[in-house]
Amino acid sequence: MAKIVVMGAGSWGTTLAILLAKKGNQVTLWEYKKERAEKLKKNRENIDYVKGIKFPDTLEVTNDINGLLDGCEYLIFSIPSQFLRGIVSMVSDQIKENMILINTGKGIEISTHERLSEVIKDEILGKFHNNIVVLSGPTHAEEVSKEFPSAIVAASKDEKVSKKVQELFNTDFFRVYSNNDLIGVEIGGALKNCIAIAAGITDGMGFGDNSKSAIITRGLAEIIRFGEYFGADFKTFSGLSGVGDLITTCTSKHSRNRFVGEKLGEGKTIEDIMREMIMVAEGVPTAKAVHEIAKEKGIEMPVVESVYKIIYESEKPKVILQKLMSRELKGEFYK
Amino acid sequence: MAKIVVMGAGSWGTTLAILLAKKGNQVTLWEYKKERAEKLKKNRENIDYVKGIKFPDTLEVTNDINGLLDGCEYLIFSIPSQFLRGIVSMVSDQIKENMILINTGKGIEISTHERLSEVIKDEILGKFHNNIVVLSGPTHAEEVSKEFPSAIVAASKDEKVSKKVQELFNTDFFRVYSNNDLIGVEIGGALKNCIAIAAGITDGMGFGDNSKSAIITRGLAEIIRFGEYFGADFKTFSGLSGVGDLITTCTSKHSRNRFVGEKLGEGKTIEDIMREMIMVAEGVPTAKAVHEIAKEKGIEMPVVESVYKIIYESEKPKVILQKLMSRELKGEFYK
Repeated sequence: MAKIVVMGAGSWGTTLAILLAKKGNQVTLWEYKKERAEKLKKNRENIDYVKGIKFPDTLEVTNDINGLLDGCEYLIFSIPSQFLRGIVSMVSDQIKENMILINTGKGIEISTHERLSEVIKDEILGKFHNNIVVLSGPTHAEEVSKEFPSAIVAASKDEKVSKKVQELFNTDFFRVYSNNDLIGVEIGGALKNCIAIAAGITDGMGFGDNSKSAIITRGLAEIIRFGEYFGADFKTFSGLSGVGDLITTCTSKHSRNRFVGEKLGEGKTIEDIMREMIMVAEGVPTAKAVHEIAKEKGIEMPVVESVYKIIYESEKPKVILQKLMSRELKGEFYK
Repeated sequence: MAKIVVMGAGSWGTTLAILLAKKGNQVTLWEYKKERAEKLKKNRENIDYVKGIKFPDTLEVTNDINGLLDGCEYLIFSIPSQFLRGIVSMVSDQIKENMILINTGKGIEISTHERLSEVIKDEILGKFHNNIVVLSGPTHAEEVSKEFPSAIVAASKDEKVSKKVQELFNTDFFRVYSNNDLIGVEIGGALKNCIAIAAGITDGMGFGDNSKSAIITRGLAEIIRFGEYFGADFKTFSGLSGVGDLITTCTSKHSRNRFVGEKLGEGKTIEDIMREMIMVAEGVPTAKAVHEIAKEKGIEMPVVESVYKIIYESEKPKVILQKLMSRELKGEFYK
């Protein structure tokens, strides 16, 4: 049984903390806001994000950062991507050589254009950074919390480390595969949220499965192009953290990013949409980061580019479909 | 303007015939059953399969095979896979050197284990077989007939031929890409129907997006493994006729194969399900053909294998989920 700290009590952090605690581990769930931490403690349930699932006795809730990592073996981050750096820096001096750091968020930091494992690496000043693992795949918290069969990938540069994380999380309903393409897994997880916004836009415009599938497929091609530029393995994108997560995020009613797209497709502004959401849609900042990176590096990404323009430059949603349909006749895999 | 014959007046054959006729081509739609041909002629609409879309004046309906291909430049087959050979043989002596043959069906012939382009090639005795083109992608007839934006692939061993077909079909709402990996395009189109049955089974069992996405992703890995065995290009499976079509078929309410799986997942027998359907679910025969081929060649295909056993050996649907979740801990891309 391991001593585990989960930082971030959103739907995913809470769900993973419960899963690990049910396996008999000693889990501390840390919540940033004091009053929210008190509410979680009082209810022994995350009523706002994971309603109906009681905390096991092996799960402790805290808001205290002092001594948080004493004896901790696995430190899990489940933090919105643009806030991750701040949270890691709060505990960086407590991080010890024997700890394994697991990131479960999906995004790219706008200010630095870094993947989230790079953000963590920065903040721990490069020490023990081979212990960083990314957990990513098609796993809605809502369904994992109900113990529906799910599969996910644990990726690290060090195979021994990813295998330890695989064993830590694996249960008979939550199947964990290992992978050593950390870059590919992170890029797939981050970029699929942008494509989900595009897919949602086709929903909001009232088009059908054909349009959406075309957008998803063109989007996948962009993710692969972007990933290969940064040294990811093509094969990773055909797996759970690539196509698998992309499918779920683009077609599911649970997906916040698809939902944002749907509302954009209906003609709402991003400001109106964000005002009504209590959860973060990571595709919104990620589209900005990816747009900037693609421009700088000269990577062709028409779908993400369209999403960026709709969100940040108030372009009309129909531009997405125009982009898709009006280019000249080509072979499918032109270079 | 070209002279075109479409053989097969199901939903897809009818939709393509209308699309081509609207572009100003002279199109003859041939229907196998005399009384159905009469009904189409009388209504100038395919009320059973493509309700609400009137035939343009440039579209002629016939049941007559005599002289059917006189002056024909493009011959299009839209025939259930297990009947294709019989239909091609009916007109094989009328096929001329200058005709381009286009197959739009998706499946594998059980009795010979052949892809459908191979079936056509057999029946025309190998003559002019470089003129065979396959049209495949994520395009529900219902949506194309309503002119929703869609994208599809025209594949042929001869690039000049696939480019001609690309131009023949392309419109501002129906985007046609060319590809020269005929084998990959055909295998993707055929096998996705088997995976859609598996995806439907998870729906019928009441599981969520996570389970379905895991099944689709594992299924894609199987399609790729099968395709590579037969010399297909890995890349094709990341495109419209691979992932694109797979997503649509596995997640759409329109999909007959997903529907068959859903009913199986609810515990119905295949006999009961087939009795209630007026259209063909190609995944049912294809699962049998693929099962036999995989066994003969030693290709590991646990998802298709499970679908086969549920349909043909009355195994319980939960076997699918067991297969997915109970295997030993592995890397994602073990060999």
